[in-house]
Amino acid sequence: MEQLVQKYLSTVNGDYWLTENEYDNLRISYRIKDIIFEQRSAFQDVMILDSYNFGRMLVLDGIVQTTSVDGYIYNEMISHVPISIHPNPKKVLIIGGGDCGAAKEVCKYEEVEQIDVVEIDEVVVKACIEHLPEVSGNLNDPRVRFVFEDGVVFAANKTDEYDVIIVDSSDPIGPAKVLFEKSFYESLHKALKPDGLMVCQSQSPIFHSDVMKQSYSRIKELFKEVKMYTAVVPTYPGGFWSFTIGSKQYINVNPSKVKNKQTQYVNEQIIESCFGLPQFVVNKLEGK
Amino acid sequence: MEQLVQKYLSTVNGDYWLTENEYDNLRISYRIKDIIFEQRSAFQDVMILDSYNFGRMLVLDGIVQTTSVDGYIYNEMISHVPISIHPNPKKVLIIGGGDCGAAKEVCKYEEVEQIDVVEIDEVVVKACIEHLPEVSGNLNDPRVRFVFEDGVVFAANKTDEYDVIIVDSSDPIGPAKVLFEKSFYESLHKALKPDGLMVCQSQSPIFHSDVMKQSYSRIKELFKEVKMYTAVVPTYPGGFWSFTIGSKQYINVNPSKVKNKQTQYVNEQIIESCFGLPQFVVNKLEGK
Repeated sequence: MEQLVQKYLSTVNGDYWLTENEYDNLRISYRIKDIIFEQRSAFQDVMILDSYNFGRMLVLDGIVQTTSVDGYIYNEMISHVPISIHPNPKKVLIIGGGDCGAAKEVCKYEEVEQIDVVEIDEVVVKACIEHLPEVSGNLNDPRVRFVFEDGVVFAANKTDEYDVIIVDSSDPIGPAKVLFEKSFYESLHKALKPDGLMVCQSQSPIFHSDVMKQSYSRIKELFKEVKMYTAVVPTYPGGFWSFTIGSKQYINVNPSKVKNKQTQYVNEQIIESCFGLPQFVVNKLEGK
Repeated sequence: MEQLVQKYLSTVNGDYWLTENEYDNLRISYRIKDIIFEQRSAFQDVMILDSYNFGRMLVLDGIVQTTSVDGYIYNEMISHVPISIHPNPKKVLIIGGGDCGAAKEVCKYEEVEQIDVVEIDEVVVKACIEHLPEVSGNLNDPRVRFVFEDGVVFAANKTDEYDVIIVDSSDPIGPAKVLFEKSFYESLHKALKPDGLMVCQSQSPIFHSDVMKQSYSRIKELFKEVKMYTAVVPTYPGGFWSFTIGSKQYINVNPSKVKNKQTQYVNEQIIESCFGLPQFVVNKLEGK
């Protein structure tokens, strides 16, 4: 039981601290109130920690993934933007998304008939449903179907099936590395209907701008339409995060779709303004 | 010489680290390559440190104010947005702004005839001009006039004089505390021409939402028009920062004004999209 705590947490004056290292040059440390859950799964080290500033946090291999306090930002942005672009999304695939937050947001759209959540690690889903309700919600919607297997294999076996695919992955290290490769985006293109669209998180424009550029370029090669948007996620290093949409047809948002969806970050202004990119991001994408 | 280093930096395995504490629950630590400058001024402890991830940083009383790597974001946003709103800004007052970055940006507008920079601490200005050229530029424009005195006293003695006032303050602790008080905003209102406008940094929507709300409300009480906008500043806690405009007349931006201004963050998209506020910010401002 104490194994993961010893591996990832340090003790200072009787308090636990979780420290993230960014390239050994920047450290972000969270004071921890309580250890809620810890288990080494078949894939990674899974912890749910209660922190002072950000409430409960899902921590995978020592890296903060989502928190009670700001988890809604990432989950709303990766869900409502693509759904608001598609005029009639009936069948949605979420790859990753073990915290269930993206599925919770997609469930707010009545026209969606089926939501397949393909998460490799069942331990993450069970831990988040039980211990992280602020992010996962009381996710109990009959339209949601969990599949605990490799999203890469799952997507490769599908053709012309989904209206919207949401790739809600962790960082491109460990089990999520393949979710940034070109062959994976090709599978997604094939798994989408002829008017379908996909979205993925494409990392930090500040700290991982090469990964961001690479995701954007790979998606642009495959899809008729590509568009990047950003959001502020305080618990990610630098606070700035990018998302990339690849679409076979539709690309304009319909802001009125997000009205009255009980969101905390997304609204009609944000769903349009999120596509306004700073010049240094534009330059990076254009290879300047 | 070693006094400030000992006060603010710790040594781990032969490396210097600067650590910022946010409410004792969150710590951000920067690995430091070199100590470039340190001096206790009449007002505060001034250091310029060379860090691994963010290049050279201006650090006041142990708090990072601006860096070589991302300083342009804050300085462009606090300058180009108000200037692009005013149709004919001739006389500009910058209160604070000792890093000279805001003045450098305002100098890009030919129609501006005079820029008064009123900074209480001459040590900061001299250190930034000498040691932080990425932020200060080779600021050597005859339109810029430095006044090393208290911005509160300076503004209180002016009437109907400025087209644009930029309040580029540090956090509302120490010498900058008065720059968030209502009587100060009243002085600014009086110092502005009948069609003038002001902007101030109004802190983090995440960590200091009460200060943000207070600035917004106080400015709204005094000015005909009030509008908030945001930017991502990676070296500020949470990465998300707010600015508030108070205007006696003009409030719409003219995006074409920022074209070809050699900016790295601001562009025509950003100057419009920066006003799109997340729902939790809207709720806070509306008192919900």
